Amino acid sequence: MSEERAEGRVTITEIARQAGVSVPTVSRVVNGRSDVSPRTRARVEDLLRAHGYRKRASAAPATLVDLVFNDLDSPWAVEIIRGVEEVAHAAGVGTVVSAIHGRSGDAREWLRNLRARASDGVVLVTSALEPVLHEELRLLGVPLVVVDPAGSPVLDVPTIGAANWSGGLAATEHLLALGHRRIGLIAGPPRLLCSRARFDGYRAALEGAGLAVDDSLVLPGDFRPESGCTGCTALLDLPEPPTAVFAASDQMALGAIEALRRRGLRVPEDMSVVGFDDLPEVRWSAPPLTTVRQPLADMGKLAVRTVLRLAAGERPDSPRVELGTELVVRSSTAPPSAPAT
Amino acid sequence: MSEERAEGRVTITEIARQAGVSVPTVSRVVNGRSDVSPRTRARVEDLLRAHGYRKRASAAPATLVDLVFNDLDSPWAVEIIRGVEEVAHAAGVGTVVSAIHGRSGDAREWLRNLRARASDGVVLVTSALEPVLHEELRLLGVPLVVVDPAGSPVLDVPTIGAANWSGGLAATEHLLALGHRRIGLIAGPPRLLCSRARFDGYRAALEGAGLAVDDSLVLPGDFRPESGCTGCTALLDLPEPPTAVFAASDQMALGAIEALRRRGLRVPEDMSVVGFDDLPEVRWSAPPLTTVRQPLADMGKLAVRTVLRLAAGERPDSPRVELGTELVVRSSTAPPSAPAT
Repeated sequence: MSEERAEGRVTITEIARQAGVSVPTVSRVVNGRSDVSPRTRARVEDLLRAHGYRKRASAAPATLVDLVFNDLDSPWAVEIIRGVEEVAHAAGVGTVVSAIHGRSGDAREWLRNLRARASDGVVLVTSALEPVLHEELRLLGVPLVVVDPAGSPVLDVPTIGAANWSGGLAATEHLLALGHRRIGLIAGPPRLLCSRARFDGYRAALEGAGLAVDDSLVLPGDFRPESGCTGCTALLDLPEPPTAVFAASDQMALGAIEALRRRGLRVPEDMSVVGFDDLPEVRWSAPPLTTVRQPLADMGKLAVRTVLRLAAGERPDSPRVELGTELVVRSSTAPPSAPAT
Repeated sequence: MSEERAEGRVTITEIARQAGVSVPTVSRVVNGRSDVSPRTRARVEDLLRAHGYRKRASAAPATLVDLVFNDLDSPWAVEIIRGVEEVAHAAGVGTVVSAIHGRSGDAREWLRNLRARASDGVVLVTSALEPVLHEELRLLGVPLVVVDPAGSPVLDVPTIGAANWSGGLAATEHLLALGHRRIGLIAGPPRLLCSRARFDGYRAALEGAGLAVDDSLVLPGDFRPESGCTGCTALLDLPEPPTAVFAASDQMALGAIEALRRRGLRVPEDMSVVGFDDLPEVRWSAPPLTTVRQPLADMGKLAVRTVLRLAAGERPDSPRVELGTELVVRSSTAPPSAPAT
């Protein structure tokens, strides 16, 4: 089995080299096109079989889609899985869930397995696959949709995101409307598009209220609770702490609430906290969290619908879709106790 | 496609009827056994093909396992997915995640899809499949492992659970050691084995301390936060409320903390709370939750290892495995403020 595993790691480029044909020719064979001579087709198919490729029967209805995460360590993931599974199941399609941990080796191994199981489409969440793997998918003729795109869309791939800018705007306007003037931001990683959009929404709301961004109130985070706790602690250590904080993820908001609890401060009496995501469990945080609802399950549903359309040879309605976000007001926000002016 | 879907719903019993042979004969054909006449084999294979069965190549290494939940609405699920995916990925196997929502129609649809994609094994979480579907799986020769078995193991299927009794014992002994004497329990659904084992652990700890179970302190729950909130509220409404509560799931513990917050009561000063599961987010509840760690990811890993061994024709080391649970003490438990005697 390990020998076969090692063999299976070859790329289409390698198959082309061994067959003495061009890469597009291998791609034509893989995709069942007729413009290949029978002899060439037979030689390429023998090599594909020897390397563990399973032939995709493109005329048949789809049976599998791959759903790929960087990591499966967040309740965020299960919301997307839930949406994808619901639509796929109804279409008679199985959802293969994988995590590639941002590691090139894991991504290659996943791609090898994808070929072996003849998956009909791929929904990729956030993570940026290396360009060479994008190219492999394209050559295999496996359609791809990206959910919550991490970077600028340079490739010809449909993307499905959330209205992050509007969400950042709504969260910050809510705090402004309550009377807050010094509003901290615990931001997401700036390399991610969604982080930049949420920050810009925060800035636009402040500017709309005639306020400038105070850089000392903007702390970096990585969407995980630890970074929310660290960021909020840093805000509390400022000579003049903010009266409210917008955390760009629910998990960072929970970390911020823990930082406040450790100092003996109450939410929302001593500081208001707004999150982003509306994970199911933040209805049960102490206190229940005011947050921006990101329709993660709906994003998953639309992604798999799009990939199944592509697999059936149709085109998506639009290559770039953003689903709306919505402010959900619960108990973690209130007017500042000593209103700032 | 809808016509094919409708056709695909037939059972092996129906195939046998149409072919005019016995059910075991169809099973022999499906499993590639040689003790079937060529003519019968051809007739049965034609029918299987017509009904969308894909033939399993049992000599080849496994490429897919199915991981089946009742529902994907809990962060609990993602922990199991994480464990299963890690081991499956390393073995070159894809993890197909499904939810059947306790509905017979969804379960049949899933089984039809499972056949179409020629899955090599099934890990079933908690849910009790109807006996007829168990029988279908057996006839298809697809190995099955059950994680966190819901009911008594009547079928010849390996099960992987957690040491629920020991966990209930440890949680309750921790509260007793802190000086609590009136300890409430918000229990899980009594039809689930894990709930009964946790309750018995609670009772055993009380009895070990010379205390009897006070039925008025035992409230029913369904593992969801709402039921923890309702149960804890009922405990607070007692003439003499307990000084501590053991919730048989983390989500119910979060609901209990919310019930206390609504009454203006503090955790752990006014009441101690212990959960069960150790979901990643309860490290960030307010306060961080004392709980019983259930090794969900490890249970998933062992389940998929077992199912892959079965798929390779091996036997599991033991048909019934319980992985250890462990008390994790954080900030939601403390001695009672007015020690009961």
